[in-house]
Amino acid sequence: MALIVQKYGGTSVADPDRIKAVADNIAFTKKRGHDVIVVVSAMGKATDNLIALAESVSKTQPGREMDMLLTTGERQTAALMTMALADRGIDAISFTGSQVGIITDTTHRKAKIVEVKGDRVRQALADGKVCVIAGFQGVSTDKEITTMGRGASDLTASALAQAMGADACEIYTDVTGVFTADPRIVPQARKLSKVHFDEMLEMAGAGSKVLALRSVEFARNHDVPLHVRSAFTWEQGTWVSNEEPAMEDPIISGVVTDMTEAKITVLGVPDRPGISAALFEPLADANVNVDMIVQNTSTDGTTDVSFTMPMDDMAQSESIVRRVAEEIGATGVTHDNDIAKVSLVGAGMKSSPGIAAKMFRVLADEGVNIQMISTSTIRVSVILPADDMERAARALHTAFGLDSGQAYSAPLPERK
Amino acid sequence: MALIVQKYGGTSVADPDRIKAVADNIAFTKKRGHDVIVVVSAMGKATDNLIALAESVSKTQPGREMDMLLTTGERQTAALMTMALADRGIDAISFTGSQVGIITDTTHRKAKIVEVKGDRVRQALADGKVCVIAGFQGVSTDKEITTMGRGASDLTASALAQAMGADACEIYTDVTGVFTADPRIVPQARKLSKVHFDEMLEMAGAGSKVLALRSVEFARNHDVPLHVRSAFTWEQGTWVSNEEPAMEDPIISGVVTDMTEAKITVLGVPDRPGISAALFEPLADANVNVDMIVQNTSTDGTTDVSFTMPMDDMAQSESIVRRVAEEIGATGVTHDNDIAKVSLVGAGMKSSPGIAAKMFRVLADEGVNIQMISTSTIRVSVILPADDMERAARALHTAFGLDSGQAYSAPLPERK
Repeated sequence: MALIVQKYGGTSVADPDRIKAVADNIAFTKKRGHDVIVVVSAMGKATDNLIALAESVSKTQPGREMDMLLTTGERQTAALMTMALADRGIDAISFTGSQVGIITDTTHRKAKIVEVKGDRVRQALADGKVCVIAGFQGVSTDKEITTMGRGASDLTASALAQAMGADACEIYTDVTGVFTADPRIVPQARKLSKVHFDEMLEMAGAGSKVLALRSVEFARNHDVPLHVRSAFTWEQGTWVSNEEPAMEDPIISGVVTDMTEAKITVLGVPDRPGISAALFEPLADANVNVDMIVQNTSTDGTTDVSFTMPMDDMAQSESIVRRVAEEIGATGVTHDNDIAKVSLVGAGMKSSPGIAAKMFRVLADEGVNIQMISTSTIRVSVILPADDMERAARALHTAFGLDSGQAYSAPLPERK
Repeated sequence: MALIVQKYGGTSVADPDRIKAVADNIAFTKKRGHDVIVVVSAMGKATDNLIALAESVSKTQPGREMDMLLTTGERQTAALMTMALADRGIDAISFTGSQVGIITDTTHRKAKIVEVKGDRVRQALADGKVCVIAGFQGVSTDKEITTMGRGASDLTASALAQAMGADACEIYTDVTGVFTADPRIVPQARKLSKVHFDEMLEMAGAGSKVLALRSVEFARNHDVPLHVRSAFTWEQGTWVSNEEPAMEDPIISGVVTDMTEAKITVLGVPDRPGISAALFEPLADANVNVDMIVQNTSTDGTTDVSFTMPMDDMAQSESIVRRVAEEIGATGVTHDNDIAKVSLVGAGMKSSPGIAAKMFRVLADEGVNIQMISTSTIRVSVILPADDMERAARALHTAFGLDSGQAYSAPLPERK
């Protein structure tokens, strides 16, 4: 008998039929003798609808009130799921984040977990109950209802798995696992049976939507293995853990594509100390999430600085940058929305030099022009024209041997 | 400066535009220098929609989980209203029933208030804030989320007004006050400027939907005057208080019509002790809300017993009654869905004998056949065929002088 945390995302609980199907899945796990903690998201587009409602009522939207509003979505799912379990003869009980004792700091809309108390969950499990927990939310040290940002139900699941000493943390989503590439873009993409935390972190950072970045960070820091899988098939998904890659594992785990960013270039920036700070401090103050930054070598005493940020922050960023460019005496500012980011991620990259060079060769052979480059120890990302993204991703997928063959030959962890 | 409790029902906050209009109303009151506590219901049909969702997911619907689900509706309105107030420069804060400290017993879906702590509300008022409170809900002595039954947001408002020592409790609804009859049925119905608690109680009991019965009971028991009015006009509504009627006040305050009940008759019931208990105890055990009961005088050692109950309880009641009828040796059971209840309510009735006789005469002149009669000191109710209800209500409205003239000549309380 094991303690299993199961997290079901919005798509998995989007309507009454799916809620009932998920309840079957939970009941099946419980009836096999396991203790089960379930974490649920809001149904389908419920959170988006609440945000739209707030926008139609108010321009100010204080964070405390947004949290009061948005937390209701997950609570509804938790109550409905518990009712569906009751129909199946499963003794279950729903809990809000506050009832669980998920204590956060006082930052509304993106609170950080300070502590998971879990007393009521522990008691309910001891009473033989399935606990169904509203994800994404907690209660602050000031006793206010808080939320932990979009996608934070994954974080709720990881944190609970750690706090309760769970044997497994299953993240149920609308795909069957983590793939070598987005199958909508690279049709020959394959599901990975396992991925290292570091790789998953880089994939999430590079734009993969399968797992929220913060939940992977948490799971890695506390060594909580995650099993990403679909609620509507029984097939094995992808294990995300700290298992080191074996000798025969491929060097590259996946190609990640991202079309959600835009690029701004500041031209003719005087090449003197403090210029970068002058440019990027105001952006940080405005909470713009700057991703890649590239500065060309100075030739005539001036240089060009390019950076990318989420498309949504484009308008605000450009107005800030235009103001700063004038102050520092730069010659111009341009922007480009039609860009895409393509990244290669692989833990084996550390011990295999030349991956970046091979990547650039493949793209050159495809006639794709690289605009920006950024690397980490296990990732190479390039910015290229949006129209070239699909072609680039497919060529890289093939060139790095991801199209066929066993990605991993190590034995799979048994399904708990 | 006064402390005013304002309660806004579901129709008043049914969509973003109405929420904004209500926020204007609240802001207006606050800017006149008053302290304001706002109690809100769920938006429009939100509660009905959540109930439908629960029905499509589950047959069992445990009370605890229904309360977890249904309380989200009021919380959403409270958060949205607070945001709309922020747009208007009003410093406001939303509270759940639990945050307010509305402590109830542990009966889910129809919990009773044990205590209103209100510490956070008191503090927020002292800080100059408008408090926006999710109605209908509390937290039980077992720390579970509870609801207090349909229409209980009125009760939340009355209870808060009492606990906080408010100067007025305004109940905003979709009508402009309490009328002498339902204007959809009796076009010549007039708005009453004041009604005594006892009359309002009888009206609510007789089927008037303007105020929930329990909130009137609470307001009467704690002497909290209620002002029933529309959120969308500035006209005076109806004051419900314990002010005794003046000499010149009319004897009858209103005609109340109700088509939500059905009737069951048990024929040939042996006339011996314990028979009524045998019949009505199982109905009480099944939570059937029996309204009127009439037993004919025994002639041949048997009698007929008729009673009315909410239409929704009809099927269940009939199956119980058929079983009991067989056990006690009754000769048959009939039912009738096509009935209506028409009631005359008036505090002056106490000192004016002959009201019932005059009522029966008016109905006889209209050719309306009375099926059942029940009276209290300030109410006479009759059951009659559903098709005759409108005609009966209009004739009574005219015959008892409700069509024209000033119903009350006493001076109105000033609008706070």
